[in-house]
Amino acid sequence: MIRVTVWNEYRHEQQEPHIAAVYPHGIHSQIAQFLQAAGFSTRTATLDEPEHGLTESVLNETDVLIWWGHIAHKEVDDKIVERVQQRVLHGMGLIVLHSGHMSKIFMKLMGTSCDLKWREADEKERLFVIDPAHDIARGIPESFVLEKEEMYGEHFDIPAPDETVFLSWFEGGNVFRSGITYKRGNGRIFYFQPGHESYPTYYNEIVQKIICNGVEYCCPRNNHYPVYGNDKNLFPIQGAVK
Amino acid sequence: MIRVTVWNEYRHEQQEPHIAAVYPHGIHSQIAQFLQAAGFSTRTATLDEPEHGLTESVLNETDVLIWWGHIAHKEVDDKIVERVQQRVLHGMGLIVLHSGHMSKIFMKLMGTSCDLKWREADEKERLFVIDPAHDIARGIPESFVLEKEEMYGEHFDIPAPDETVFLSWFEGGNVFRSGITYKRGNGRIFYFQPGHESYPTYYNEIVQKIICNGVEYCCPRNNHYPVYGNDKNLFPIQGAVK
Amino acid sequence: MIRVTVWNEYRHEQQEPHIAAVYPHGIHSQIAQFLQAAGFSTRTATLDEPEHGLTESVLNETDVLIWWGHIAHKEVDDKIVERVQQRVLHGMGLIVLHSGHMSKIFMKLMGTSCDLKWREADEKERLFVIDPAHDIARGIPESFVLEKEEMYGEHFDIPAPDETVFLSWFEGGNVFRSGITYKRGNGRIFYFQPGHESYPTYYNEIVQKIICNGVEYCCPRNNHYPVYGNDKNLFPIQGAVK
Amino acid sequence: MIRVTVWNEYRHEQQEPHIAAVYPHGIHSQIAQFLQAAGFSTRTATLDEPEHGLTESVLNETDVLIWWGHIAHKEVDDKIVERVQQRVLHGMGLIVLHSGHMSKIFMKLMGTSCDLKWREADEKERLFVIDPAHDIARGIPESFVLEKEEMYGEHFDIPAPDETVFLSWFEGGNVFRSGITYKRGNGRIFYFQPGHESYPTYYNEIVQKIICNGVEYCCPRNNHYPVYGNDKNLFPIQGAVK
Repeated sequence: MIRVTVWNEYRHEQQEPHIAAVYPHGIHSQIAQFLQAAGFSTRTATLDEPEHGLTESVLNETDVLIWWGHIAHKEVDDKIVERVQQRVLHGMGLIVLHSGHMSKIFMKLMGTSCDLKWREADEKERLFVIDPAHDIARGIPESFVLEKEEMYGEHFDIPAPDETVFLSWFEGGNVFRSGITYKRGNGRIFYFQPGHESYPTYYNEIVQKIICNGVEYCCPRNNHYPVYGNDKNLFPIQGAVK
Repeated sequence: MIRVTVWNEYRHEQQEPHIAAVYPHGIHSQIAQFLQAAGFSTRTATLDEPEHGLTESVLNETDVLIWWGHIAHKEVDDKIVERVQQRVLHGMGLIVLHSGHMSKIFMKLMGTSCDLKWREADEKERLFVIDPAHDIARGIPESFVLEKEEMYGEHFDIPAPDETVFLSWFEGGNVFRSGITYKRGNGRIFYFQPGHESYPTYYNEIVQKIICNGVEYCCPRNNHYPVYGNDKNLFPIQGAVK
Repeated sequence: MIRVTVWNEYRHEQQEPHIAAVYPHGIHSQIAQFLQAAGFSTRTATLDEPEHGLTESVLNETDVLIWWGHIAHKEVDDKIVERVQQRVLHGMGLIVLHSGHMSKIFMKLMGTSCDLKWREADEKERLFVIDPAHDIARGIPESFVLEKEEMYGEHFDIPAPDETVFLSWFEGGNVFRSGITYKRGNGRIFYFQPGHESYPTYYNEIVQKIICNGVEYCCPRNNHYPVYGNDKNLFPIQGAVK
Repeated sequence: MIRVTVWNEYRHEQQEPHIAAVYPHGIHSQIAQFLQAAGFSTRTATLDEPEHGLTESVLNETDVLIWWGHIAHKEVDDKIVERVQQRVLHGMGLIVLHSGHMSKIFMKLMGTSCDLKWREADEKERLFVIDPAHDIARGIPESFVLEKEEMYGEHFDIPAPDETVFLSWFEGGNVFRSGITYKRGNGRIFYFQPGHESYPTYYNEIVQKIICNGVEYCCPRNNHYPVYGNDKNLFPIQGAVK
């Protein structure tokens, strides 16, 4: 059974009543709930817990970590970020949602500013599958609509994705690479753009299906981790080199 | 249960006793045997059967097609090639082995000459996993050796692969992108270089594991096939365009 | 001086007065004109000329071929298509415009259906640069608008591009990978979507600049063409292999 | 005229006579010399200079920065690393040589460990061009040999390169992606593996030509730098969103 840890900054929901109205138990609880229902073993962790809830033992028991953060990226301890990065490079999957694009962990794994254009205007978003053979597109219609989302628009300052699964159209005149994957070391990463805190995006069944697909896609395959360093073995013929 | 059809030109084994000595029932039978043992539903097809054994109904019941051909590429009927291509674009997986790099179907899907350097000199080949998070690398050591293989060397005239899983070293001084993947339409393609007819490569357990992994990787996900053509629906606001 | 041949089907302009009103001397003449003004050595060729104007000698003197076709793709002789493909693989650049996405030459080089969604509704198109370090984006604003274009929408059935330079937003609710590059053999390919025959797109100065950039990007570098075939040289040590 | 700054740690050459024998004025001086001869405007900078020689004004006057470091990566000030990263994201080219694969700046831009296998055994290295249409392959033979180099072998823990230009074969049984490119923000990066301090690699004319090609490839195109942040403009129709 795939073990998922859903991490949430969990500030908007505690500080702003209109956000709490959408996610009364926090975004993490809502995400954990549909993952649980889909058959994943799920736990949550939040910023204000000791070590942000991401102790060595929690991470060692996590196959896929989901990350939602927004206004408190800077409060995340660099040591925990380093710990998460190491786990990703050793095989743990990572799903970064929405405003997590500027989280320390995502920026550290990307090496770029991860900046973009944004606009809060209750716009329609329409997502298109552009990689119809991808695992994450399994069962997803070729396009679907979110009635209201925050606009995230190009240019998105990221490395060229390994795979671009979704492109988004926004009513106000923008486009965005809204579902992208990367491999880093032995780990797989999926960034998925929808999920502004003021909209009920994570109640949308297609969004839920995409995140469930993402968990399966990012789950480690228990592949061999390479050996690095001094390789003294001359392979083909003993003494072949002078 | 994943349904695999193993296609073989099946000429070397019938015409040359030293090849028959290695693969007495044909390369296809040996491949089918280990796939069957691994739990796949397996059938075979060969060049000299009517429609090369690749009738509409056979292809419609095939999730992944494996292709081995060498000296008789030109005898493959263009209509069958077209049929296979259409099936791949609609989701059927395709694994092309060794000298299949210059099969009509591979060249048609790649759009390039697919040419390369080669040498028959009983050389050692050493394969390295360079995408350790890939499905096809599951359970595969970071490198392994084939004591004798035909050298295939760069430059290999292919489109830049979507993913490069294996790189090979050859004793005589060459390198090769020996395990590569592509998506075309809704279909997934895996090209894997080892398997010269005069060597017992398909009895090697690591090679077998890689091909089994490849079958799982290439198997269609039953994703939606996109709708193409005239899209009369103006989406966001009726009458928004003038 | 870079030598460009602009190929045009040249049927709409001769058969339909409202198209002739936009391009009185044909789309090819308009493209040739701004290329000439930009300092390229330019000639044109059209479908109804002998060998479609693409004789061996014309192609041998062409650094970059620009292709515009639409209603007569099937009239293009397969032998000429083969000839153009060989020239591309040996280094000639190819720029495919708009409806050329379903030309024989583009389909042959891609290996897929190259199909897409389309709509003629006088929609606004907005193009975004998503690869701001690309040669083809030199001097191009981060986004710009074409007041009226034919909608081309995803899913676009192409291999994952080597590079995606432009993404387009269409008023009616669609997105498109509107500027993409591929390398095939020693040749470079640029597909650029704008340019429906009924709109004055090729008079737009930004579009012109993009096509000029594309010519410079696709121009062959006179790189070495690889040697293929039997490579008898055992490189490192004479007699190293048994 | 393209302005290149060659940065060198410059420790081996000052501390070890057998290295000084190869590069009496430092690796940076040798690289600067052939770049100067090739027509580039060249300066050098080294670790022990104030700000490592990489002041704001030096970087602002640099089109392409070349980086050679090995035993003192940790002595490079994080603030200077941050400064270089920002310059790269804003368009400055970066060429990382040999052991610079574990420099702070390369690791920061990659997001991975950048680790690999290595061996000092005076091995032959043979490099193959696998992207024959690439700018960096201009004028380079399809393969060439370095009589002695340090072995760098897979797995190389890097993001999948945007482009792989060279693959290397090592006598002792290893392969390596020895010439790779990335875009990060508006900047271009070229990593090139040859250049161990004890070998006269930077006197090799083909190596010199590759580095010169790399400088031209990485040189900024003065493309527009995107605008990020709150984009209040609703584009298509004033008041279209509710």
